[in-house]
Amino acid sequence: MTTKLVKNALGRLVPTEINGKKQIPFQGVGKYRPDYRKYNPQVVTCADFPTGNKLIVDLKAALVNAGLKDGMTISTHHHFRNGDLLAVEIFRIASELGIKNLIWFPSASFPCHAKIIDYMENGTVHHIEGSMNGPLGRYCSEGKMKGVGVLRSHGGRYQAVQDGEVQIDIAVIAAPTADPFGNANGLTGPSACGLLGFALADSQYAHKVIVATDNLIDFPCIPWQIQGNYVDYVVKMDKIGEPEKIVSGTTRITKSPDRLLIAELTTQLCQEASLIKNGFSFQAGAGGTSLAIAYYFEQIMREKNIKARFARGGSNQYLVKMLEEGLVDYLLDGQTFDLEGVRSMRENPRHVDTSPFTSYNYHGKGNFASLVDIVILGATEVDIHFNANVNTHSDGYLLHGIGGWQNCLFSKTVILPIPLFRDRIPVIRDEVTTITGPGELIDVIVTERGIAINPRRKDLLDALKDSSLPIKTIEELKNEAEKICGIPEKPKLSDEIVAIIKWVDGTVIDAVRRVIPLTRTSPRRGRRNQKS
Amino acid sequence: MTTKLVKNALGRLVPTEINGKKQIPFQGVGKYRPDYRKYNPQVVTCADFPTGNKLIVDLKAALVNAGLKDGMTISTHHHFRNGDLLAVEIFRIASELGIKNLIWFPSASFPCHAKIIDYMENGTVHHIEGSMNGPLGRYCSEGKMKGVGVLRSHGGRYQAVQDGEVQIDIAVIAAPTADPFGNANGLTGPSACGLLGFALADSQYAHKVIVATDNLIDFPCIPWQIQGNYVDYVVKMDKIGEPEKIVSGTTRITKSPDRLLIAELTTQLCQEASLIKNGFSFQAGAGGTSLAIAYYFEQIMREKNIKARFARGGSNQYLVKMLEEGLVDYLLDGQTFDLEGVRSMRENPRHVDTSPFTSYNYHGKGNFASLVDIVILGATEVDIHFNANVNTHSDGYLLHGIGGWQNCLFSKTVILPIPLFRDRIPVIRDEVTTITGPGELIDVIVTERGIAINPRRKDLLDALKDSSLPIKTIEELKNEAEKICGIPEKPKLSDEIVAIIKWVDGTVIDAVRRVIPLTRTSPRRGRRNQKS
Repeated sequence: MTTKLVKNALGRLVPTEINGKKQIPFQGVGKYRPDYRKYNPQVVTCADFPTGNKLIVDLKAALVNAGLKDGMTISTHHHFRNGDLLAVEIFRIASELGIKNLIWFPSASFPCHAKIIDYMENGTVHHIEGSMNGPLGRYCSEGKMKGVGVLRSHGGRYQAVQDGEVQIDIAVIAAPTADPFGNANGLTGPSACGLLGFALADSQYAHKVIVATDNLIDFPCIPWQIQGNYVDYVVKMDKIGEPEKIVSGTTRITKSPDRLLIAELTTQLCQEASLIKNGFSFQAGAGGTSLAIAYYFEQIMREKNIKARFARGGSNQYLVKMLEEGLVDYLLDGQTFDLEGVRSMRENPRHVDTSPFTSYNYHGKGNFASLVDIVILGATEVDIHFNANVNTHSDGYLLHGIGGWQNCLFSKTVILPIPLFRDRIPVIRDEVTTITGPGELIDVIVTERGIAINPRRKDLLDALKDSSLPIKTIEELKNEAEKICGIPEKPKLSDEIVAIIKWVDGTVIDAVRRVIPLTRTSPRRGRRNQKS
Repeated sequence: MTTKLVKNALGRLVPTEINGKKQIPFQGVGKYRPDYRKYNPQVVTCADFPTGNKLIVDLKAALVNAGLKDGMTISTHHHFRNGDLLAVEIFRIASELGIKNLIWFPSASFPCHAKIIDYMENGTVHHIEGSMNGPLGRYCSEGKMKGVGVLRSHGGRYQAVQDGEVQIDIAVIAAPTADPFGNANGLTGPSACGLLGFALADSQYAHKVIVATDNLIDFPCIPWQIQGNYVDYVVKMDKIGEPEKIVSGTTRITKSPDRLLIAELTTQLCQEASLIKNGFSFQAGAGGTSLAIAYYFEQIMREKNIKARFARGGSNQYLVKMLEEGLVDYLLDGQTFDLEGVRSMRENPRHVDTSPFTSYNYHGKGNFASLVDIVILGATEVDIHFNANVNTHSDGYLLHGIGGWQNCLFSKTVILPIPLFRDRIPVIRDEVTTITGPGELIDVIVTERGIAINPRRKDLLDALKDSSLPIKTIEELKNEAEKICGIPEKPKLSDEIVAIIKWVDGTVIDAVRRVIPLTRTSPRRGRRNQKS
């Protein structure tokens, strides 16, 4: 890397150019003002679609007709999560065709995509722009990817496409149901995965759009979560995904006493600060601790006869139950985390599919995230300024995507219930390995040994000043962890930048350095967070 | 008018510049290829919408904050049809503020908008770009408007906005229900009008978007037919429209024996040509003859156990009944023509709201209109080349908009059931006063005295060669009319161009000349078609 580095508003050294594209350093929350226009795709004409029937024989023909060639940017969505069958197939075809240096622009990648490492090795894929969960993150971390990874939040991905930072040449949209015109949804069919919101930007802005389905029905496919008016080709395939694998990561309430304690403390804090009240809203996520918190919320709501106006998904069986019992009026859902979520979205008009445009895009006239009262998020590390990391572990490895995490920081109260240490590595540090989100947006850290409230939230501190909760300063929490575990070593990192972390406005909030692998087998640290 | 005139592909003399903007003459169906990019609005930021609450005290404050100034383009939608209360109010405020030379860009205008003539007289409004039904059309026809009128189809309006031909400065969207974020729909509330599809382009592309509602509810307003992410201001008003007046024009089955005969002949033709079959689709419209045809279709479908896959609205009680009885799987509806349509769209997930983008935009990757098997349309005049006019009467007066009429011409079989003469004026002429649609797209003319099939439709002629139907050439029909009524006089028109008629691709298919009013009171000719 010979690119110039500059210090951004958080004091992080970030590159001014990546993969040949100029980058703007993070300037502070809400400080960067875009002074340009949206990306404008070429105008097309119905003269080229006279019958409205866009069926083509197979995926290879669709890719060839879409003009697949070296260096193109190819996008996919991740609603199948670890059950996606399409992305690997696309690059298998590209490899077979001898195409080189593609940029893969998924909305997230999972262990099921590990095979794409082969296509990076043989030159078919140049690099990945998108969240990398697991093996691909490890590959990137070790500096093996030809280009530099670019990680964005769900909202940041929409923003990047809308703003033309990423220009998608070909979008391939796995669609559980579609018609020959290209209208598509995720609600029905053997591979139903709920919704297709992560492919919305792709459909609207990509040069060519291919819909691949294993459930082709007569026009009209209702509802059209993806509108056929954006679609060039429709391909019928045998199987596009394994919906049973959308249940990845923890989708059961934790049984760990420490984590249950964290969940209890979080709930008590919300209650004492009067955040759980009629008409409130919350987003909890799908980790074991988050699910416990949602469960405790439910108990309180039932007991005190409190109704939430809305809850945000990723949906799961617990949220569906709350919706069906009338504890929440609406479930505004960006992705279904289990098959109960899929069923509910199909059947219940109050379980509404949303998209990164409605929920998270920072370059819009507001978004839903800022309307949520309480958001519960995870983190791998937090520093004493409340800056938090969700991407790298303390050993420096990039193993998780951003998901909607950054976008959710704009909610009214942001709470991070996290263990004080994981595998004897303290989670609260002087400095985090990677800053994914600025501390000024993070309000509360809840650990099993105490709660730290961001001093900026004087209102919360006031509301809780007589509380029996173990409220401490974040420095106190850090010292407590270090007293038990010792001061953690810094990870061994090279200067080489292997990925950058974009902020919600497209600026660069941090850079990820290449890991210098330990010679001995190092123990895996920490546990997975569910963010994508 | 000193602008240069050129002959377009239909031999009509059209201007190369209108209102200071270059114009492209019609080049033939599917011949004009756009070689430019979509309009790209300025990128905005959530930093300017931190709370997501966009309520502002009143419409005047919203207009002032949106930067209302001389010469701006202001858009409104017409889902209230003749019951709209908002457009006049906007220009009343603008007039009060001393603003001049606004361009009003409605999706259609109605007699309820006659007051806007006062605002054209006092200089507040410069001209109207949009369908002008009734008094505003008359005002324009007589050359009293400062600028030249530009008439577009519903699809052409979307195309013009998407392509940047019309740049909307401020869109004001009357919304029967909305939340403070700006999410809005037409389904519920005291002024429910069904849907808001005609305002879709406005929301997506206007610089500033104001939602005005008389039914403000808590976030989230579900469904969001208009997405709050596009909205700048939300205004609570006492009353935005009179939904009982969306029932404008004929919404009852005709009782005229001639028209019933036309409807019978049309139905018989469709049946003999095997167009009414399982899985077929149709769009009939709301005139008395069209309703009779829909009624006859229903009888056949019931009798022969035939189900349509979909019917297209404008919806009305008859289509709703067919949907509810399972004779059609889906009703794909662009506007509700009566309150039964509104109710059905609110209650029935198979009654689906569409937009000019999905249904009609010619600069997309196909649209729904081309998927419809049978479309029934009206016309004020047809010429011997099957070119048809829906805008002007034979006296030259511009009294109707285009509506979806041009867009529907792309359906598989286009049938115009029309009387052979109206008030003793023949409808089939050597030349129509105005060409709204090219004859190559019009397949069948059905009159009470015979049926003319376009010679281009050899398949239809073959299918009907042994038919007992009174199939004649269009010249024979014309001669028959002239034998009864005499050869009609041409209207008295000046050279001055008062309006242009855009084709679906933004080219100019015809120009409308100023009418030289007769000195004696001339009888009104013909009757209204329902197209907007």
